[in-house]
Amino acid sequence: MDTHLTYKTTGVDIDKGNTFVQNIKHDVESTYDSNVLGHHGNFGGQYKYHDNVLVASTDGVGTKGILVKEYTGNYYNCGHDIVNHSINDILVQGGTPMFFLDYIASGSINLDDCTSFVKGCCDACKQVGCSLLGGETAEMPSVYKDGHMDMVGTIVGEKTIHIDLQGVHEGDIAIGFASSGPQTNGYTLIRKIIHDASLNSQPPSTQLMDVFTTPHSAFLEPVKHLERICIITGMCHITGGGLTENLKRVIPSDLCLPSINDIILPDWCNWLQTHGNISIDEMKKVFNCGIGFIVFIRPSELQTINHVIQSIPDSLQPIPLGTVQKTNI
Amino acid sequence: MDTHLTYKTTGVDIDKGNTFVQNIKHDVESTYDSNVLGHHGNFGGQYKYHDNVLVASTDGVGTKGILVKEYTGNYYNCGHDIVNHSINDILVQGGTPMFFLDYIASGSINLDDCTSFVKGCCDACKQVGCSLLGGETAEMPSVYKDGHMDMVGTIVGEKTIHIDLQGVHEGDIAIGFASSGPQTNGYTLIRKIIHDASLNSQPPSTQLMDVFTTPHSAFLEPVKHLERICIITGMCHITGGGLTENLKRVIPSDLCLPSINDIILPDWCNWLQTHGNISIDEMKKVFNCGIGFIVFIRPSELQTINHVIQSIPDSLQPIPLGTVQKTNI
Repeated sequence: MDTHLTYKTTGVDIDKGNTFVQNIKHDVESTYDSNVLGHHGNFGGQYKYHDNVLVASTDGVGTKGILVKEYTGNYYNCGHDIVNHSINDILVQGGTPMFFLDYIASGSINLDDCTSFVKGCCDACKQVGCSLLGGETAEMPSVYKDGHMDMVGTIVGEKTIHIDLQGVHEGDIAIGFASSGPQTNGYTLIRKIIHDASLNSQPPSTQLMDVFTTPHSAFLEPVKHLERICIITGMCHITGGGLTENLKRVIPSDLCLPSINDIILPDWCNWLQTHGNISIDEMKKVFNCGIGFIVFIRPSELQTINHVIQSIPDSLQPIPLGTVQKTNI
Repeated sequence: MDTHLTYKTTGVDIDKGNTFVQNIKHDVESTYDSNVLGHHGNFGGQYKYHDNVLVASTDGVGTKGILVKEYTGNYYNCGHDIVNHSINDILVQGGTPMFFLDYIASGSINLDDCTSFVKGCCDACKQVGCSLLGGETAEMPSVYKDGHMDMVGTIVGEKTIHIDLQGVHEGDIAIGFASSGPQTNGYTLIRKIIHDASLNSQPPSTQLMDVFTTPHSAFLEPVKHLERICIITGMCHITGGGLTENLKRVIPSDLCLPSINDIILPDWCNWLQTHGNISIDEMKKVFNCGIGFIVFIRPSELQTINHVIQSIPDSLQPIPLGTVQKTNI
């Protein structure tokens, strides 16, 4: 009998993570002063500062680092991963990057590993004009398994992108932007599938391995483009929790994005689904399914969806995702 | 033959960490825009923002978490540790806290462990009016050893404490403030010594274990007190690298603080030195030796050192450390 592989069976329990967020919500919100905007559970946090709003977020590369090190020999791509991931996490709140801080920890400092990671961070920072303001390197032989390293980043930006205060409404147009690969999520499951497929003499092709280890993209450029010509009503970075969980963070519960049901999976998703025997629901709960970032815009009489899509340079790989609709009850 | 135990023999190489900082200096500084103040290698980073300066720092609890969990049954104290450690790291640059973000990672999320840590962070944040703006919890079964958790924090503050631009000079007065214990540094060595002493039926007393697991103190209050009555020329948070390395970060290389040579070690240091057979030089390179934070002030005709010390409430535990002098060549 075939059994479906899930993220949970590989040791990563997304529901438990969500429970934790709920458990601490009251305590966390009790620390808020009047400058904190929004609420606990967002992609990042917003903090009113004089006449401006600072936006900050912290996150890690996760176990993608293991695959990247094995395949590329260093952690350079992971530096790009965490910087770009962080940029997207503040971008959904209208934040554009000012500075970044990194944290690296392992059982024993390997100078080459740490240096390749920080060089990746530096290069990714320079691409968007973000300063690498500080960092910390920790050596914890009792906590980390030999040869493994955790890579974490925190970004602080300024809110410069206008997001309509009314939020996402019925009829709003959704434009996705293609992900470069799984971005920085689902790698404990991906590594399990690659491992099992390799044991069965069906390892992924070099082309697929390139996709699995390529850095997370930053979506600053497409968002800046759309902001110039449209009213943005919401944005969504498809990270941990996949399409399913992340869309819930921006679309009200009585609305949905039906196009997601008919999404065409990219090759890397098809390979994972086939070799991991993963249900489509699980695919959408774990992976971005080819869509790295979604921007919701308010329709206007002057602009049809086609006009907007045509205005976007092909290099930014827009994916029209139709309109937001009422959920059928 | 007696052999001296060192931090390096337990797996933590401070010199290698310093080499890494030098290796990446050029790349990191290449990301700086004109808003970045200071240079790479400071306790935290400073970023000019409109008419103000933001100060940020990132750091982890280190292996203190292992001891705290074993002895207290949870990670509550570690929440205080990382928040207070972070507060001190920006304080030395004149920063006072605005918001904090946490990152927790382990092989498998233990809800009680994560919740106790975040509750500790929340309570420490509330004590200084800092908002816990965001966080991330990661589950990485391949990277973390079973039952262990890494706890990391990033703080962002505003520069509100005036530090004289001329910095520390000959004749400046040094006032230390007592640490609550080893703060958040040296725990891989501390745990090794406790383990070995326990095997020899000489475990530390309950009183000492309380000190080893008590949270890091925040030194915001003594600094605010001194700022009101003195000209502060520099500050020093005694963290990783102990008294030796951290003093170098604020005192120019041709000056020194001779009182450090005659420092009276607190009981917890004496116990560690005796049971670990640690040289005094190594003690000073790893531990704070009872002094958690040092403030340097410019002497004035109106105030003698005694007047300044007498003005400080006893509860803040000031330790007069004499004056800064020329290094004997």
